[in-house]
Amino acid sequence: MAELRREPVARRWVVITTDNPKGPSDYLPFKLPYRLPESGDQCPFCPGNERVTPHETFSLKKDGKAWSVRVVPNKFPFFRIEGEFNRRPEGMYDVMEAIGAHEIVVEAPEHDKALATLELQQIERILLAYRERLIDLEKDRRFLQFLILKNYPGIFNRHPHSHILAMPVIPRSIDEEVWGMVDYYQRKERCIFCDIVKEEISAKKRVILETVHFLIFAPFASRYPFETWIVPKTHASDFHHLKEEEIGDLAVGIQSLFLCFSKLLADPPYSFVLHTSPVQERFHRPEYHWHIETRLRIGLREGFEWGTGLFVNPTPPEDAAACLRGVK
Amino acid sequence: MAELRREPVARRWVVITTDNPKGPSDYLPFKLPYRLPESGDQCPFCPGNERVTPHETFSLKKDGKAWSVRVVPNKFPFFRIEGEFNRRPEGMYDVMEAIGAHEIVVEAPEHDKALATLELQQIERILLAYRERLIDLEKDRRFLQFLILKNYPGIFNRHPHSHILAMPVIPRSIDEEVWGMVDYYQRKERCIFCDIVKEEISAKKRVILETVHFLIFAPFASRYPFETWIVPKTHASDFHHLKEEEIGDLAVGIQSLFLCFSKLLADPPYSFVLHTSPVQERFHRPEYHWHIETRLRIGLREGFEWGTGLFVNPTPPEDAAACLRGVK
Repeated sequence: MAELRREPVARRWVVITTDNPKGPSDYLPFKLPYRLPESGDQCPFCPGNERVTPHETFSLKKDGKAWSVRVVPNKFPFFRIEGEFNRRPEGMYDVMEAIGAHEIVVEAPEHDKALATLELQQIERILLAYRERLIDLEKDRRFLQFLILKNYPGIFNRHPHSHILAMPVIPRSIDEEVWGMVDYYQRKERCIFCDIVKEEISAKKRVILETVHFLIFAPFASRYPFETWIVPKTHASDFHHLKEEEIGDLAVGIQSLFLCFSKLLADPPYSFVLHTSPVQERFHRPEYHWHIETRLRIGLREGFEWGTGLFVNPTPPEDAAACLRGVK
Repeated sequence: MAELRREPVARRWVVITTDNPKGPSDYLPFKLPYRLPESGDQCPFCPGNERVTPHETFSLKKDGKAWSVRVVPNKFPFFRIEGEFNRRPEGMYDVMEAIGAHEIVVEAPEHDKALATLELQQIERILLAYRERLIDLEKDRRFLQFLILKNYPGIFNRHPHSHILAMPVIPRSIDEEVWGMVDYYQRKERCIFCDIVKEEISAKKRVILETVHFLIFAPFASRYPFETWIVPKTHASDFHHLKEEEIGDLAVGIQSLFLCFSKLLADPPYSFVLHTSPVQERFHRPEYHWHIETRLRIGLREGFEWGTGLFVNPTPPEDAAACLRGVK
């Protein structure tokens, strides 16, 4: 199991693994790098190895035959479905069990595909899988916050996959956004993300591309070189209420953007997160505006950002947007 | 120059470099890794190359002869001393010039030393240099927050060095601590860090070592494997009011801790930050309790932490503390 412990000063929740904890020898340099499973027999996400993963929670078939996208519970989850919260004090501190869901979306049968090389319909299927899983997970009243996360290339397995997390707490960085949006709404009776979309369309210089329903741009205070946000142009608090036609349009935007990254920066490593409103009646926020944030894992100044929460970015977003716009 | 731009939703400040910005080619994989300067002629921090750095702001001599610790302005600063803030709106956003100070503490004349291999008196000299620079920088009323940061090994130069930053804004992660401490004080009329010190001494299981004036322990909600905090046992808001005898005692603690890390984890890469109260009468907080936080750069789960602000740590701090305590 894992525990959720609360840092008592800034009041952040931290997940601490308590069974099979890692000792010093797990971190020794000669033990690293971790050996990645290769395509075929070794990879639990390759076709033919379906028995190795826990039973799937969702899948989509291609032409009614073999699976094309598959969702399975993570074998090594941060949060587990089973158990009680058992909220309790420990000395002066707060702790509870890390109850939640942590699923893996296997994005394609092929071991060596990426968002920049998948066909459009496959990206649509991935987005559809995200949506259907969130609709289902929302029924569990213990889960307050969803997060979709992708690391490329995968850290422990290169087979294209992403993570769906359903959490019993609202993590700090999403909570800050929620309260920023609520505060702005209370002052202006307008959504700050809707205003940002209007501002960016009018200023033009940070826009990367625009689809029917989405604006893709480098945010004004970009924390990372080539940081990019994908924001629906009309207000929507929940990703999982997306309509079929919007999913097709989002797939077009995602494919174009990751093709741009790949061409401009020679297939760079990246992460993206999808932020959506907290769920359940008591926590849901209609003022929230869902969106995707991408970060390329290049030129990071780790220590400083960690120490201050303040980011240093040597690439102005206007330049980043211009470069990305200029990709042929 | 660089600009401070405010992210309008969560209201974080971000430093954006606007002169000599980095373009895509600066991040291309075949351009990396950056070639590190070697000892001697190439290294601007080695003795004999003093003319390559900006004029020093402080130095300490060994036996009254050659310098043993040297502080110089950073040639590539995040914040610059010269100029006006020029606070202004840009569309719906907020921006100002990044005015501040960014100095480098050259920790020893030798190119290949580390905290684990420096002699005790040299660590004392480094701490003394930190203190004297903060006392001097506090006179500039534009600076509200100091931060001391060290990355080991250095990212662009392996010569042992650390950074002193004087900032015109209070960065988010320090501001959260400040308000956590103030809030606790208002409820209890006690300092939360003083309470944590008492709790940890009584619980014992997370303590790594104790000196006359400092407690060194793995915090209850450790965000990273082997995360460690060094906290003064009696209340003190400002690092730079430290007395001579406390500096000697802190040097003992630092040397022991980094020797432990080096032995237990085969000389691991790490970062540390020193957090101290905001300065200037309007912002200074007597409720604040200064401290050092260390993070080993091992086993990081980057994407998740970035996406959520929520940390996952597979090494319980009790185990970490026990391992570190057990180092011979």
